[in-house]
Amino acid sequence: MRVLNNYISADCVIFGFDFEQLNVLLVDRTLRNDETGEVEFEDLTLTGNHIYEDETVDEAANRILYDLTGLQNIYLEQFKTFAHPDRLKKPNDRKWLLHDGRDPDKRIVSIGYFALLATQDVTLEWKGRNVKWVPVHEIGELAFDHNLILQRALIELRNKIKHEPIGFELLPEKFTLSQLQKLYEIILDTEFDKRNFRKKVARMKYLIPLDEKQTGVAHKPARLYMFSREVYEKTKKELFDFWV
Amino acid sequence: MRVLNNYISADCVIFGFDFEQLNVLLVDRTLRNDETGEVEFEDLTLTGNHIYEDETVDEAANRILYDLTGLQNIYLEQFKTFAHPDRLKKPNDRKWLLHDGRDPDKRIVSIGYFALLATQDVTLEWKGRNVKWVPVHEIGELAFDHNLILQRALIELRNKIKHEPIGFELLPEKFTLSQLQKLYEIILDTEFDKRNFRKKVARMKYLIPLDEKQTGVAHKPARLYMFSREVYEKTKKELFDFWV
Repeated sequence: MRVLNNYISADCVIFGFDFEQLNVLLVDRTLRNDETGEVEFEDLTLTGNHIYEDETVDEAANRILYDLTGLQNIYLEQFKTFAHPDRLKKPNDRKWLLHDGRDPDKRIVSIGYFALLATQDVTLEWKGRNVKWVPVHEIGELAFDHNLILQRALIELRNKIKHEPIGFELLPEKFTLSQLQKLYEIILDTEFDKRNFRKKVARMKYLIPLDEKQTGVAHKPARLYMFSREVYEKTKKELFDFWV
Repeated sequence: MRVLNNYISADCVIFGFDFEQLNVLLVDRTLRNDETGEVEFEDLTLTGNHIYEDETVDEAANRILYDLTGLQNIYLEQFKTFAHPDRLKKPNDRKWLLHDGRDPDKRIVSIGYFALLATQDVTLEWKGRNVKWVPVHEIGELAFDHNLILQRALIELRNKIKHEPIGFELLPEKFTLSQLQKLYEIILDTEFDKRNFRKKVARMKYLIPLDEKQTGVAHKPARLYMFSREVYEKTKKELFDFWV
C-alpha cells in the first residue's frame, strides 16, 4: 500500500484561459458538524495533495492534475515552495485539519506548481470532483496561504510570458490572432494596438498560418494559426534584454 | 530553546566571482571512525542546514549565509525544491546520517537557494568553519544530490542573467568594463567582441562611469564603473524578447 508523506504537499495553481478571462481551478472545501450535519464553513482551496513516499514531487503534481482534469502532458512548472510557520494557523484551517485527524501545529511544506491549459480542453465532470473555474479577478479569501501561492504564481506567469512563448499553452491547438492578442492583454493587464500587434506577429516564423478558418462564429470567420515549438527552437535568438 | 525541524532544510549554492572564475562555496564533510579516529571518507557538500521551527525558509537561508560569510543583505533567491525519494540513499550519505543520529530513510525536503557575491568581500576565516571556494568547472562528486542542485542553480543563473542585471551582484561595488565583460563571458560560456561589448555598454544609462581608476595594477589602470539600480528601474523598458 502506498503511504502518503504527511509533511510534504504539492499545490497546483491550474490556470485556464477561456478566450475571455484567465481562470483558476478551485476545489470546494465544506466542513460539516459531525453530529448535526450543519455546515460550519464553506470555502475554496487550490488543487493539491500530499505526496506519496515513493513518488517525486513532479509525479505528485502530475497526478493531482490528472486526477482533476483527466489530462496528461500539461505544461506544469514548479515555481516556489511555501513553508511559513503560520501558514496553517487560521481558525478555519485549524478546524479543518483537526477534523481530518491532522495536527495543525505540525509544519507542512507546500511545493507550488502552476499549470497552463485551455479551459475548453477540460471536462470538469471527470471523476465527479467538486471543482470549478473561477476568474482570477473574482477570487476571494482562499484556505491556508493559498492567496499568497496564487499571487506568486501570477507574478511568475507574467514574468515568464515576457521571455518565453508559454502563452500558447493556454490556447487550444488552433487559435485566431485576436484570441492570441486577448490572451496577452488579459495576462499582462494591458492593451495592444491591433495593427502593431499584427506587425509583430507577422515576424514570428514559429506562428504558422493554417488553411483553415474559424467555424460557428457570428462574425466573419478569422484564419486559424498554430504555434510551432520546433520552429521556435530553431529560430530563437539569445537576447540580453536588460542590456537595452 | 529553538527546535530544528528535521525534515525541512535549506541548501544554498553560494556563487562567488573572483575576476577569473565562477566559484561555489563548499563545506568539508569528513567522517571519522568513532573508535579508531580513522577517516572513513572525506568529501564536500553545499552549504545548508535544517530550518528552525520558528523561522521562515528565507530566514534560514539568510542565517546560513551569514554564518558562513559574515555578510548580510546578499542577493539570495529561492529557485527550486528537491525532494526525490532517493536523494539521501548513496552509501556514504547513509553512513553520515546514521553517524549523526538521523534516519536516512526519512524523506528530507531541501529548498534550494542561490546567492551571488564577490569573493573578495568574504573572509573565509569567519567563525573558523571548514569552507572553501571551488571553481565550478573543478567540482567533483558532491554529497547527497548536491551536484543536481548546483546544476539547476547554474541553469537558473544563466537564464536570469540574460533578463535581469543580476551580474553586478557578483562584482565589487566598483569594477572595470573588462571585469564586467569577463563575468558575462564566464557565466554564459561565450566570448564577446570587445568593441561590440563597449558599444552596448555605452547605451546603458544605469552603468555609471566614475572619476576614479584602478590602483595597484601592472597594466594601464582602467576607469571604474558602478551599477545604479535606481537608474535601471527608472529607465528599463518592458520588453517581450521572445516576440522577435
